[in-house]
Amino acid sequence: MTELIVLPARTGTALRLAQGQRLKIVNTHGTQVVDCWALIPGDPQEHMSMPHSRNAWYRLVPRPGDPLVTNRRRTILRLEEDTSPGIHDTLIPCCDLERYHQLGVQGHHDSCAENFAKAVQPLGVAMLPPSPLNLFMNVPIKANGALAVAAPESKPGDHVVLKAELDCIVALSACPHDIFPVNGADSTPRDVAYAVLDR
Amino acid sequence: MTELIVLPARTGTALRLAQGQRLKIVNTHGTQVVDCWALIPGDPQEHMSMPHSRNAWYRLVPRPGDPLVTNRRRTILRLEEDTSPGIHDTLIPCCDLERYHQLGVQGHHDSCAENFAKAVQPLGVAMLPPSPLNLFMNVPIKANGALAVAAPESKPGDHVVLKAELDCIVALSACPHDIFPVNGADSTPRDVAYAVLDR
Repeated sequence: MTELIVLPARTGTALRLAQGQRLKIVNTHGTQVVDCWALIPGDPQEHMSMPHSRNAWYRLVPRPGDPLVTNRRRTILRLEEDTSPGIHDTLIPCCDLERYHQLGVQGHHDSCAENFAKAVQPLGVAMLPPSPLNLFMNVPIKANGALAVAAPESKPGDHVVLKAELDCIVALSACPHDIFPVNGADSTPRDVAYAVLDR
Repeated sequence: MTELIVLPARTGTALRLAQGQRLKIVNTHGTQVVDCWALIPGDPQEHMSMPHSRNAWYRLVPRPGDPLVTNRRRTILRLEEDTSPGIHDTLIPCCDLERYHQLGVQGHHDSCAENFAKAVQPLGVAMLPPSPLNLFMNVPIKANGALAVAAPESKPGDHVVLKAELDCIVALSACPHDIFPVNGADSTPRDVAYAVLDR
């Protein structure tokens, strides 16, 4: 078992995965949302796409075995394991400073968009964040199509494993949202952990 | 009333709208899906975004008065009128050749992605199509999160009016899907019509 690396609360990271490598993401405290992106090195146009992935699944949320596909319909990641109740979100964009200002924040606020930009910049990527796979995020849909935001239902230590089906860059952000109960009933961002597993 | 322009079945178009102009889109036969995009001239990074729009509505589908926002959280269009039952889709990407090949088509098939590319190219835009607002598209969601595809519930002559809140490029595609009942129970793409209304 490869060593787990802590991703501190409110921060992001990015790493290169070679085809066949696996990334384990652990919801250490059970209450934390992790925004996840996958990019194609050298092609700013192609990236993991939630609309195209939903089209492949004919569901809103992936289950173990499901592909995550790009906007060119290529499988870039695969959800191999999920010990959580399987409640994730593919509908909501990552948070950004503009959103926090809309919610009444004055001045700066950490955001998944800023975490994404800072994490991928050293890898030579400069783009607005595509729509992420929001791991562990709980966005209940009411019968009338209204969306809500609720605390994650995952337990401490729940994890997912994503397998790279293409050489790719994966970016993660431990979401710094602290206004709604996105990150638990106490709206408190917490650390998570990840590891690149041996093949 | 400005003259209606026919958009033939299986084809696309793109036009510039100045802030304040309104675009009327008529579902002439009631059964046709129209993929709709809005772009910022000169900035290939910013475009109308369904995830950001859903975040503004906290619903899956817009209602009259709702903003359509970009991935920089700026309102680019507004849904001003909708005489249809209000069933539209924000979840599914536009169809493309890769998708038709996945569905068993051999060789070429018209697609909304190709219509988009051909329509915006003369306006100096070269990008993969962002996730569209699929006007009149009926994607029922089951209680377990499964998605289906059903025929539109709009009536012949139903229309929407979109107001430009920014100077923008709007692209439309009369979806050429003829395999599933996306475009009516007989899976037959048909013409629609549009008009730029006087301010």
